[in-house]
Parts: sequence; structure tokens; C-alpha cells
Amino acid sequence: MTVADDAGFMAGALRLARNGFYTTDPNPRVGCVLVKDGQILAEGWHAQAGRAHAEVDALAKLADRTQARGATAYVTLEPCSHHGRTGPCCDALIEAGVGRVVVAMQDPNPLVAGKGLRKMRDAGIDVSCGLLQAEAEQLNRGFIKRMLTGLPFARSKLAMSLDGRTALANGESRWITSEQARRDVQNFRAESSAIVTGIDTVLADDPSLNARVDFAVKQPVRVVLDSNLRMPLNAKMLQLPGETWVITCHDDPDKQLRLRDAGCRVWQVGRRMGRVDLSEAFKLLAQQQINTVWIEAGAALNGALLDTGLVDEWLLYVASCALGDQARGLFHFSQLQSMAAKKPFKFNAVRQVGPDLRLTLSR
Amino acid sequence: MTVADDAGFMAGALRLARNGFYTTDPNPRVGCVLVKDGQILAEGWHAQAGRAHAEVDALAKLADRTQARGATAYVTLEPCSHHGRTGPCCDALIEAGVGRVVVAMQDPNPLVAGKGLRKMRDAGIDVSCGLLQAEAEQLNRGFIKRMLTGLPFARSKLAMSLDGRTALANGESRWITSEQARRDVQNFRAESSAIVTGIDTVLADDPSLNARVDFAVKQPVRVVLDSNLRMPLNAKMLQLPGETWVITCHDDPDKQLRLRDAGCRVWQVGRRMGRVDLSEAFKLLAQQQINTVWIEAGAALNGALLDTGLVDEWLLYVASCALGDQARGLFHFSQLQSMAAKKPFKFNAVRQVGPDLRLTLSR
Repeated sequence: MTVADDAGFMAGALRLARNGFYTTDPNPRVGCVLVKDGQILAEGWHAQAGRAHAEVDALAKLADRTQARGATAYVTLEPCSHHGRTGPCCDALIEAGVGRVVVAMQDPNPLVAGKGLRKMRDAGIDVSCGLLQAEAEQLNRGFIKRMLTGLPFARSKLAMSLDGRTALANGESRWITSEQARRDVQNFRAESSAIVTGIDTVLADDPSLNARVDFAVKQPVRVVLDSNLRMPLNAKMLQLPGETWVITCHDDPDKQLRLRDAGCRVWQVGRRMGRVDLSEAFKLLAQQQINTVWIEAGAALNGALLDTGLVDEWLLYVASCALGDQARGLFHFSQLQSMAAKKPFKFNAVRQVGPDLRLTLSR
Repeated sequence: MTVADDAGFMAGALRLARNGFYTTDPNPRVGCVLVKDGQILAEGWHAQAGRAHAEVDALAKLADRTQARGATAYVTLEPCSHHGRTGPCCDALIEAGVGRVVVAMQDPNPLVAGKGLRKMRDAGIDVSCGLLQAEAEQLNRGFIKRMLTGLPFARSKLAMSLDGRTALANGESRWITSEQARRDVQNFRAESSAIVTGIDTVLADDPSLNARVDFAVKQPVRVVLDSNLRMPLNAKMLQLPGETWVITCHDDPDKQLRLRDAGCRVWQVGRRMGRVDLSEAFKLLAQQQINTVWIEAGAALNGALLDTGLVDEWLLYVASCALGDQARGLFHFSQLQSMAAKKPFKFNAVRQVGPDLRLTLSR
């Protein structure tokens, strides 16, 4: 086996992991390839929580379990060593008699990282770790960030005219960007654990906040940040399948109860700068197993998020039109007094989406 | 000679034409290659008005004038047939005994287009036209547009934060974009016949509006659109070498005289929508042999230019910072009442310039 062979099989395992891209949440996406004598014996992946992990899925696909003896398993994430909803995968690999295990990355959970690798090594398996690690990390940015930091991986989506406007002065915003850009957004929604918005957006647009795609998807949780519990009981999203969570800092048991009766989960966190403490809210989401957050909010919430460090990526759709300086802006925050106070970003990527541009930025 | 050989020599002629890129104004950039038996005999280009045209320059570089007999001349623009400051180039090619002339494009001046080609054909030369025509046109967009339409080729340069702001609320705008972006702008200034700005920019920033580059350049004319003759007699640009023109619609002979005494040329055009008639102003510039206009103006002038059709290209530098919705906007125009009234653009190119982006747009 050359390093190139190993990389080829691991790339295959990464592709298999993507089969679960829209469905494994809150679990990570994982793929596995079993190889003997340079031939692929079986391919597996994790499809959704409660179903087989990738290694077990691959082993189950063997025509004959004894085939696994002396085989090499390529796995995109360290096989688990603990009993979850399914048995530990490293035990399954050990029992199957696998001779070598190639892993792309350790389990990001600091409490278990390396335990699975050690257990397999102790059982006499030739174990290596780190092949195509960056690619494996890319696949599970949310899961990894949540494990390492107790916060979700968060992206805020913004859509503006080329002169930086999100809506006309009268509030009209349909549509600045193209149909292609809006379809692109649906795919990002579909890969997210939660879609977060502010109450102002709910009151202005009454959005559905679901992923409207033509493939199987675990629908994201809708999360409304609603400092003063202004969430309407007849909001459209409350009529739709799936969960709606309201995070507030307003202690009004009656309104909370009415919202719960209307089907919401209501969470109360602290108040900070006159609004929901964003850091507390994001920690709460991670505690509730939200790996990735997709934010679609207005200028007030995005302005408040700017300096929190809670947003990992800003996706800015730029439409090829101008709306003029009377129209509404992208980020609301108090007037800057000097250019030294400008809020720096970094451009990470630029891509054409239909007639629009999509800029990927980080701070 | 194959078509590929012809294209190769014409590409060489186009490269030679670029030697005069920053200096031929108001003349076009033209290059010429003389070839015999597949070998280049001489290369010529037009360097600046009053000096030899490209064909004559190439002929003058021959070791022996008789070498040109039976040679092929590749010229990026139809050789002239009229007596200007120099003799007609087609006569020079005929007299030199050139056997074949390959031309990239006809003279764009409708009054003389084709006359040079005909004269050479009548003299028995094998003449063809149209090879790499698009590339040749690209070289002289301003000259061609002026000849065809009586208007200059105009580009407006805008620089904004990623949220579409050109300055803080207090007016501070130094610097939003990077040093690299500002250097890029200097190159565009250098290739322009005139830099146009509005009086508001002069009053706010007292700009120099010259091309600060480290190569030889014919400095562009500075043009200030100044409806009400508010141009300060002590404006910095009046102390600098080169010409400053003020275009006004204000009939105040005293102030006009004082500006002339201060070194300005003052032009009066009609008033339209409460300001200098932009269409008249641009026609005036073309009449004064301004091929290309580089506009660096504020939100008011850019807003007024938007729907005039006078601007061919918008170059939008996008800095990787946010300034917030209290900061100043890109285009000033009256509030839009419906999204159907948005001003559509087309993205033609996106390029990274240092840490910033440069978007090239047209309407």
C-alpha cells in the first residue's frame, strides 16, 4: 500500500460521509471503506442518529463477515469507544479481525479523544491517524466546534444590493437577490442544525425558516431571539412541521406559557446591552446539540453579533443592483467617530451565484 | 504564411501599441510590425501626438528602406489616409513597396473609415482587415467611442466598505480601501484623458486629481463639475502642473474671470435637474478630444450619473471592513417606492486587489 493508495481510499471514505451530509445531525458525518489486497470490500456511512455508525454499516455490507480479517478500514473520524445508542465501533472492528485502521482525525471530544485509537492499538491493530485531516475537519465544522468550545459553528447570511442595502426605506426587500441565490441559501439552511433570526424579522416578514430542498433533510430547528417576548402566537412558522424555539430574557410566565401552548419551546437567558445575551443564547444552543447555526437576521441583530466573536463566517450575497442611500443598511451599530474604529473583515472566497456574487468573510 | 503566423505577428503589434498606452492621448494607441519571409524586419508604435505614427516609426527603423519591398505590415489600426500633423501612413506604406497589409480594425471615424484600406488596395497591395479586432478595439475604447458617438468612454470609480459606505457620518473617508487599491486607482488615472469630479468632493477633500505613477504619462486633465461656481480659487489642484477645467451652468462672468485668472479653463453648459447638464458636459469633453473619463465623485454626482447612460463602466472597490448604517452611502437618489424600481447592473469582472475586491460593473 502506498500513501497515495491510502489517500485514495480515504478520499472515498470522505465522499461516503457526505451521503449523510443533510441527515446525521446532531451526529457527525462519517464514512468508512474496508479494503483488502487493494480491493474495496465494502463501503459504509452514518446516515442518521440512531442508525448504524459508518464502520458498523460497512461491516454489515460484507458478503461474509470473515472477509474483514486482515483488512484495512479507512474511517474519516476516530471510531467510538463508548456505548451510545449503538455499540462501540472500535470493538466491532476488533471483533471483525481488521488488521489495520487508517483514521482521518481524532474524536474532537476532549473527553474521549484517542481512546478508540488506543483501544484498537492495544488489540494489536496497526492504527494511524491524520490522513486528509483538514478535509475531514471541513466535513464536521459544527460538531467539532461544539465539542471543542461548547459553542455552535455559526454563519450569518446577508443579502444586499451592490450599494449595501437590504431593503427599501419602506421595508420592501422581495427580492433583491436572484432566484439562484435564494436556492443557494436553501442548501445552506438544509445543512444547518438551526436557523436563527431576530424577532424584528419575524414581525416584518413572518418567515417560514425551513429548508425547501428536493432531497431528504433533517429540518433545522427555528430559533427566534426575542428579548421582550413579542413573538406572535399566529406566526407562520408555528403552523409548520418542525420545532420553533424562542430565546428570551423577558420573565413573563403568562406569555411564555401561551407560546408553549402554541408549540414553541421557550428558553430564558440573561439580558445584556438591552437584549438577549447572545453568548448565553449560543451556549444554550450548543448544549441542546445544535452543531451549526445559520443566521438570517436584520441589521440590528447582525450589528449586535459583529463584535461578539460568535459568528464564524459571514456569507454576503451581493445583488447586481443599486437601491440608493435612502434604503436600509446591512449592520446597525452606533456611529463610528474615526476610521480607526472600522470593523475589519477578511475575504475568504468569492463566487458567482447566478447574476449575484457570494462573498465569504470572516472577522 | 498561416493564419496562426498572422495572428502571432498581430499580437506582437498589439503589444507594441501598448508602449504608448499612457502617452498617445488624444491619439489612439497603434502598433506595427514589418515582416518578410517570416522574419520581423522592424517594429514601430505611436508614442505621442506630434510624433511618428506606428507605420512610419517601423519603416524608419529599417536598416535599409528597400527591405520593405514585398514585406507584410501588421498594423493594429487602419493606416491613415489624411494629412494630419504627419503625412498619411498609407502613402508611406505604398511608397515603401509593401506587398501586403494586415489590419486589425478600420479607423473608427466614420468620415474616413475604409479610405486608407481602399487607397492601398488601389495601389495593388494585398489588404485584409479584422484580425484580432476585439483586442485592437479594447486598446482604444475611448478613442473609438468618441469617434463613433461624440462622447468619451467613461468609468466611475467607487470605493466602499463591504456594507456599502464611502465615508463615516462625520465625513472621514481616509482610508477605507487598502494602499494596493489606491495604487491600482493611480494606474487607471494615468490611462485616462480626464479625471472628473464634483465640486462637493473638491470642497470636502481638496484632492490633487493627478496620476501619481512611476512611469511616463500624459497627465489627465482635471475636470470639476461645479453648477454654482463654488470652486475655491486656492484649491490645491490649481497649484499643480497640468490643466484644470471647470464646467458650470452658472452665468457669473466675474467668478468665471477670477477662476480663469487662477489658471482654470471655464466652460458653461446648460442646467438640467438643478445641476450641470451632464450630457452636455460629456459632449463638451469629447469635443475637446477627451477620449476617456475617469470619474471620482461622491454619492450625489454618482447618483445623478446612474440613469444617464454616460458611464460605460463602474469600478467598485470593496474594502473588507464594515462602517455601519450611520455612515454615508454610495449613490444618492430619491427614495425608491418599489423593488421594481431598483437600478440593475451587470457584474463583468471580480478581482482581488490586495485585501480588497474590485468589481467591474456596467448597467
